[in-house]
Amino acid sequence: MQFANWGEDSFLETIANLFLSPKGIVGIGDDAAVIPQGNGNSLLVTCDALVEGVHFLKEKIPPHDLGYKTIAVNVSDIAAMGGAPKYAFLTIAIPKTTATSFASEVMKGIKEGCETYGLSLLGGDTVGSMHDLFLNLTLIGTAKNGFIKYRNGAKDGDIVVVTNYLGDSGCGLKTILENFSLTSDIETLQKAHYRPTPSPAQGTWLASHHDVHAMMDISDGLDCDLKRLLKSSQKGASIEISSLPLSPPLLRFCKRNKYDPIPFALTGGEDYSLLFTVAPQGLNTLCEGFKKRFDSELYPIGHITQEEGISYYKDGEKLSLELTPFNHFNMSSPP
Amino acid sequence: MQFANWGEDSFLETIANLFLSPKGIVGIGDDAAVIPQGNGNSLLVTCDALVEGVHFLKEKIPPHDLGYKTIAVNVSDIAAMGGAPKYAFLTIAIPKTTATSFASEVMKGIKEGCETYGLSLLGGDTVGSMHDLFLNLTLIGTAKNGFIKYRNGAKDGDIVVVTNYLGDSGCGLKTILENFSLTSDIETLQKAHYRPTPSPAQGTWLASHHDVHAMMDISDGLDCDLKRLLKSSQKGASIEISSLPLSPPLLRFCKRNKYDPIPFALTGGEDYSLLFTVAPQGLNTLCEGFKKRFDSELYPIGHITQEEGISYYKDGEKLSLELTPFNHFNMSSPP
Repeated sequence: MQFANWGEDSFLETIANLFLSPKGIVGIGDDAAVIPQGNGNSLLVTCDALVEGVHFLKEKIPPHDLGYKTIAVNVSDIAAMGGAPKYAFLTIAIPKTTATSFASEVMKGIKEGCETYGLSLLGGDTVGSMHDLFLNLTLIGTAKNGFIKYRNGAKDGDIVVVTNYLGDSGCGLKTILENFSLTSDIETLQKAHYRPTPSPAQGTWLASHHDVHAMMDISDGLDCDLKRLLKSSQKGASIEISSLPLSPPLLRFCKRNKYDPIPFALTGGEDYSLLFTVAPQGLNTLCEGFKKRFDSELYPIGHITQEEGISYYKDGEKLSLELTPFNHFNMSSPP
Repeated sequence: MQFANWGEDSFLETIANLFLSPKGIVGIGDDAAVIPQGNGNSLLVTCDALVEGVHFLKEKIPPHDLGYKTIAVNVSDIAAMGGAPKYAFLTIAIPKTTATSFASEVMKGIKEGCETYGLSLLGGDTVGSMHDLFLNLTLIGTAKNGFIKYRNGAKDGDIVVVTNYLGDSGCGLKTILENFSLTSDIETLQKAHYRPTPSPAQGTWLASHHDVHAMMDISDGLDCDLKRLLKSSQKGASIEISSLPLSPPLLRFCKRNKYDPIPFALTGGEDYSLLFTVAPQGLNTLCEGFKKRFDSELYPIGHITQEEGISYYKDGEKLSLELTPFNHFNMSSPP
């Protein structure tokens, strides 16, 4: 069997079964590993890689944005656990034909990302590559024990909430791949794809609330990532399609080009919104506090159920959606 | 300009200038970053990547060994600072045509490496790749403050010492690339290439001695890595060629095939021996203690000088060697 037919999650499961974590340490299976330090704090550690031809096209992405995005996608993982990101380690494998100016711009984007999020880049590895440009970032953060949120904490009746518009990045990628002429809306969508804006401040704030039970970030699309959260929590969810937060640029673009925005929102990938569940009685206070603290909305989109899997509804009516999941191993691009 | 003409060290220097470490933290430029934890200990963090076609040939290396080697080369970096390796994070980018059996064997080798060195694999990233198989390991270790050795501590008159035979790995690679028929000697040389044997126990033992002033591991060949240590310490060195430790299999192979073993020892790369400098008055005690503790020799090969660069001598006579450095960016294979 070839890897293409196996899939990332199956391989991950194999790895997770092969490597069990020592007692007290949370290893494979969440957005970041959690290593208690014995002083009331834990280290959070995450790795995310960007590979040419799979996660980006070298001839499309501005190299500065590629560097910035390498930082941002990892910051998103630390934020999703409720941690503060601190120390970065970059491994970059560079084909020998790469222009040094391209590599320099990537590093400047990395630097901008580090400055934006207050990170120190402390090391890594610089190596050659035969064909593909490859970037891996390992990001170490810290969090107070007791204020770390996992994927496995969702409870029956919890409200499912996201912190940001969904689908902009996936739609932005489509306009990049299909060479759409730039408009102000398309620029906004492409920016969502190239320069995600995770917020560790929002992550730690949400994680500090006991009513928030489970949290992760959305990197592979709401449908895929919510399923991971549900599997981890051994729950299901009902999601109301008409509650999905869709940005005005996405809505205008889809209307103009006769696209359905929903597949972008569910499977577009790379939104880097936070996805969490909260006890229903805590929702209003949380929304008000969030609005006050961040001048930004929280978007409730459904609730946790006992039944496994996700049921989608539109205005209360159950839908039967056929979704193509975002899967790096198929090298498929979002819809 | 293309990357091939720039080189790994030039790019690393550019990066090091772009990213300065916060006070008290040692970042880019040594075998591992050092992050003090405020409790008398520091975290050590290192990343080392293995890339198909640059560091290994997929059709040659047994996948189990590839996994094992990914662990070993990183353990070597932590050992070189005097640390104990603890937590591993693996990023693996896999072409979709890769056989799942190959990927599974790689993971079993990773597991054997983790078990050998008492590591816990706690996370990473699993992604697709268009062409090249790519492995990056981030390894976190710990060390007591005050018992960590750096590259920059070498002092005038220090003796330069290595802990292991040099050149076996480089020669082993040659026999692999040139399809030599297997003999017992060639098997030993190839094993040195595929399964390095770093020793964190030796690293921490050496680092606990105050007479040991500077330490690193030899990954790119003695000539290249000693130059890095000297640059970092702003010193030079005299090396006596006849003192280089050469293994019986290497000597027999070279004699039989009429090769000079010295270029293998100086530039073959991937020896993963420790390289350190020690005050001359401490050498004898150190050698005796090392022999007693590890039943293994230390090999003094020269001494530190004020003059920059390395001067090579044979039986006291100065040599003028023309060495081709081991450089991933030239995709060159050792001699």
